[in-house]
Amino acid sequence: MKICIIGSSGHYGYALNGIRADGQSDIAGLSKGDKDENIEGLIKQVREAGYQPEVYDDPVEMMDELKPDIAVIDTFFHKNSKLAIEAMKRRINVYIEKPVALTLEELDRLIEVYNQTQVKLSTMLGIRYSPHFWTAHNLVKNNKIGKIRLIHAQKSYKLGVRPEFYKRRETYGGTIPWVGIHAIDWIYWFSEKKFKNVYASHSSLFNNNNGELEVTAVCNFTLEDEVLATVNIDYLRHSSAPTHGDDRVRIVGTEGVVEVINEKVFLLGQDTDGQKEVPPEQGPVTFLDFIWEVRGIGKCLVSAEDSFYVTKASLLARESADRNEIISF
Amino acid sequence: MKICIIGSSGHYGYALNGIRADGQSDIAGLSKGDKDENIEGLIKQVREAGYQPEVYDDPVEMMDELKPDIAVIDTFFHKNSKLAIEAMKRRINVYIEKPVALTLEELDRLIEVYNQTQVKLSTMLGIRYSPHFWTAHNLVKNNKIGKIRLIHAQKSYKLGVRPEFYKRRETYGGTIPWVGIHAIDWIYWFSEKKFKNVYASHSSLFNNNNGELEVTAVCNFTLEDEVLATVNIDYLRHSSAPTHGDDRVRIVGTEGVVEVINEKVFLLGQDTDGQKEVPPEQGPVTFLDFIWEVRGIGKCLVSAEDSFYVTKASLLARESADRNEIISF
Repeated sequence: MKICIIGSSGHYGYALNGIRADGQSDIAGLSKGDKDENIEGLIKQVREAGYQPEVYDDPVEMMDELKPDIAVIDTFFHKNSKLAIEAMKRRINVYIEKPVALTLEELDRLIEVYNQTQVKLSTMLGIRYSPHFWTAHNLVKNNKIGKIRLIHAQKSYKLGVRPEFYKRRETYGGTIPWVGIHAIDWIYWFSEKKFKNVYASHSSLFNNNNGELEVTAVCNFTLEDEVLATVNIDYLRHSSAPTHGDDRVRIVGTEGVVEVINEKVFLLGQDTDGQKEVPPEQGPVTFLDFIWEVRGIGKCLVSAEDSFYVTKASLLARESADRNEIISF
Repeated sequence: MKICIIGSSGHYGYALNGIRADGQSDIAGLSKGDKDENIEGLIKQVREAGYQPEVYDDPVEMMDELKPDIAVIDTFFHKNSKLAIEAMKRRINVYIEKPVALTLEELDRLIEVYNQTQVKLSTMLGIRYSPHFWTAHNLVKNNKIGKIRLIHAQKSYKLGVRPEFYKRRETYGGTIPWVGIHAIDWIYWFSEKKFKNVYASHSSLFNNNNGELEVTAVCNFTLEDEVLATVNIDYLRHSSAPTHGDDRVRIVGTEGVVEVINEKVFLLGQDTDGQKEVPPEQGPVTFLDFIWEVRGIGKCLVSAEDSFYVTKASLLARESADRNEIISF
């Protein structure tokens, strides 16, 4: 596989992991995605890993010249969907940062081009691959808690110092689509239910002079079969905390509860005498399963359909919060 | 203090605790609150504690004859507010099960009589008094986490076998007012902010043939100053769990996080190096502080105003869930 990487403003590390684990792919080119983007760190990292990529200033020129099999697209958030469209039009498969678009209109356009071009596409919802979430998901899939009825998901991050483009909705997209999308993804991935409606709220107060960036948000989803779910999102994790993020999910079923907290998995149900910690299992490797899907073998854990659907859910949640209205899917 | 107890369908144990701790009060009378209520357990418990109460079938007759200082009102939920009104009209102070009314109309009537009669009133929001919640509240009050921005509160109970009156909305009131009210109370008590609007959902599916009883519910509150809060409520706690309830609250401030989970208190903030467990302190004793307020000394932790306000919030949340609408306070 010939791979090009455009931008380094998000989770391109997932791609590097998968390429390393694969061992049969080449990183042929690197380009910034925006003239103001600095990709020096990416260039250094890729060279140190033993690759000799061509470095471009113009990602479209890079795609035209190098004709990669896969474009990893991870630049300033508002540019990602446009570059993915450029890639797909050239029949290049796309591994794109989430959310895959910052507006519903851009999402529709992306889906349209995807349907026309029939390339492969996945997005960087990499937390699904972490051993604790993977293990929790297996417990649910193996019917350890019966039918899912209630989910609460939490994302809590340190704010730290954020790049300039985080400070404007137009370039950042908002905290529900950027951070909350993981929590929304878990709800969808675990429950296997479609969303029926959402009500959400968010606030930019106390954002430490980060412009329009929302530092707190909550969502309330109703899914098929009256499955209920809430989300808490914040950038207020204290700088002294041992980890950057405090990701949690609690899934309540008719026969038990599965929980991820502190990167540990807990099960309460008929198979346990009280609550018990479940040792984490290793799941697939991020991006490696996408490489294999492009090769025609197997399916990536995060499908194109899931990438689109979860992005849409996060954009509708943001819209609900902006308008203070319940929004139906 | 001469005390009468009407009914034994809820948390009358809080009153027994306070009376025992006081040591200077008498339980003068006991009565069922509804002809179908069985108060044999209460009678036995009170006699074993060394009191010789008169036992009545008619609570109003009991109040007229015994003229107690305080009536503890804890019968079938739909009868509580009516009996509280009867007590207040006789200038008897009232310690009433929560929610203090099952409809907004009944709540208005209760408040009207309260304002006319100027008795003392408190409600059984007893979790405020538990050492872990009391300790968490002190941390917030002592400014350990800065300004509160986000709260998530959880109530999870074993369903077990419930009395018949739980199966009808008219007599039970609903799971948001009965169970969720505690979580709603914590949000109000910790934040000291008024509610601005609520959106809630609930479901009676998979309720094990308990009629109209909702087994899952979620609420989403916006408070003053864009403080955001969510609630998860369920009756799906597995029978093998070590405790009946799994009460939690997580309070995110501008300078840290306070959390109650597994009856433990955790603080993450400037005073801790990473997250630290905080040893629980003993708070006041339920009902004992109400006895002292009736004596004219001090203030009960759960004021009449809080009792009314938190009941109103829980009834509006229920209404939101019934109507699938955002409701403004």
